[in-house]
Amino acid sequence: MPSEQVLRELLGFAHRLADASGEVIRPYFRTSLDVVDKKDKGEGKYSPVTIADKAAEAAIRALIKAAYPDHGILGEEHGHENPGAELTWVIDPIDGTKAFIIGVPVWGTLIALNAGGRAVLGVLDQPFLGERYAAGPDGTYLGDRKLATRACPDLAEARLCCTEPGMFAAGAEWDGFERLTRRVALTRYGTDCYAYGLMAQGFVDLVVEAGLSPWDVQAVIPIVERAGGVVTDWEGGPAETATRVVAAGDPRLHGQVLKLLRAG
Amino acid sequence: MPSEQVLRELLGFAHRLADASGEVIRPYFRTSLDVVDKKDKGEGKYSPVTIADKAAEAAIRALIKAAYPDHGILGEEHGHENPGAELTWVIDPIDGTKAFIIGVPVWGTLIALNAGGRAVLGVLDQPFLGERYAAGPDGTYLGDRKLATRACPDLAEARLCCTEPGMFAAGAEWDGFERLTRRVALTRYGTDCYAYGLMAQGFVDLVVEAGLSPWDVQAVIPIVERAGGVVTDWEGGPAETATRVVAAGDPRLHGQVLKLLRAG
Repeated sequence: MPSEQVLRELLGFAHRLADASGEVIRPYFRTSLDVVDKKDKGEGKYSPVTIADKAAEAAIRALIKAAYPDHGILGEEHGHENPGAELTWVIDPIDGTKAFIIGVPVWGTLIALNAGGRAVLGVLDQPFLGERYAAGPDGTYLGDRKLATRACPDLAEARLCCTEPGMFAAGAEWDGFERLTRRVALTRYGTDCYAYGLMAQGFVDLVVEAGLSPWDVQAVIPIVERAGGVVTDWEGGPAETATRVVAAGDPRLHGQVLKLLRAG
Repeated sequence: MPSEQVLRELLGFAHRLADASGEVIRPYFRTSLDVVDKKDKGEGKYSPVTIADKAAEAAIRALIKAAYPDHGILGEEHGHENPGAELTWVIDPIDGTKAFIIGVPVWGTLIALNAGGRAVLGVLDQPFLGERYAAGPDGTYLGDRKLATRACPDLAEARLCCTEPGMFAAGAEWDGFERLTRRVALTRYGTDCYAYGLMAQGFVDLVVEAGLSPWDVQAVIPIVERAGGVVTDWEGGPAETATRVVAAGDPRLHGQVLKLLRAG
């Protein structure tokens, strides 16, 4: 585990990565139709999303390789480099591609640093809104503002978010989620990674999702946990390589949710 | 039906109404927890949403009464004034209360002018993002930019939005919507009124919803139609007082969708 001082330095570097990815991605968001059509025709099935994805991830990788050639890199678009490294950057250049395509600014660039299997730094950057959530040894910040989840011990008061009902497998997985929706104050779909930032701000109490990959999850773990929440898989284990995730802003909600998800 | 010149003047007035409502609502969005708790305790079941709702609608009504005392006003929070008037303002100060509560900026202030039963002017204001969609005799605008829906004659390419699956009644209504989701390129929940603005911009092709009220619908009709789309009820009739709405950015999609919704 790197020292706090090293982590602070690496968090500063993660901000530089997010600056670079934001520059690359921003011009593609809400791209005019002419550009969409031209790219589609010129590059087969490529859409502006995948172009922006690949270009942003390439920019991030180039910066990491230049500054920290021994670090590992695991990203959605270009695979795993230096797989045995002690420190690995785990990145999703655009989490929330459907949101990106239809123009809703709840997609984000996710950048995590993994040390010994645990996500120790996380950045969620929304370059269209100019909102950047960053978590390290000193807490979770939105810009200069330190964030904290809200107290919400009662499931009946909880606000639940999830990207889409279609992420759950039919059967026990969906049934567990659906059971939870009947107990909370409100369920909101269509939130992608942005929901975890809203949890760190104290506006969302639960995010329950499935079908995820490490690059969807690792950056948001420190963002939620350093703001006072907890993130695990559906069995209560570490979420870093989980496909199914439960994030709770108030840890007192967490056990109740795990029980409900399994109650069938 | 008022002349185009009168409509332009009234659209200018609608902008003033949106300026006023935005000023009232903005401070309540992403309100700190202390404020939320205080208001909740002081005013029974009132939340920051309902406080902002009522205050914004009161501000809009006061401006209308001062400038056009003979006009009708129909709003979600304070009922129907001058019900026999030739011209009626139809307003929803905050469409998308769940989005407002959890902090996602897809809620909006909806202001329509109804003449002889038809919505002839529409404003959708998102004061947190500083985005205002306004439709009148000269087209639909986002700020200074004139908008147009995109060409999408093929249902398999269409992007469908809807606020939440729970808005459909179980049975034929949900079955019709679900049948549609299996034919489109993507379905996105969690969009509220903002989806109609994205349709006018050419990023969304279909919005299909149910359980609506006139103040949820009337402002978005001219916004979509003046950008090239079509908005009806699920039977193809006028949408102004419909509870179930089909909006299509490309009119060639519209008939296909109506057929699918009824196919059960």
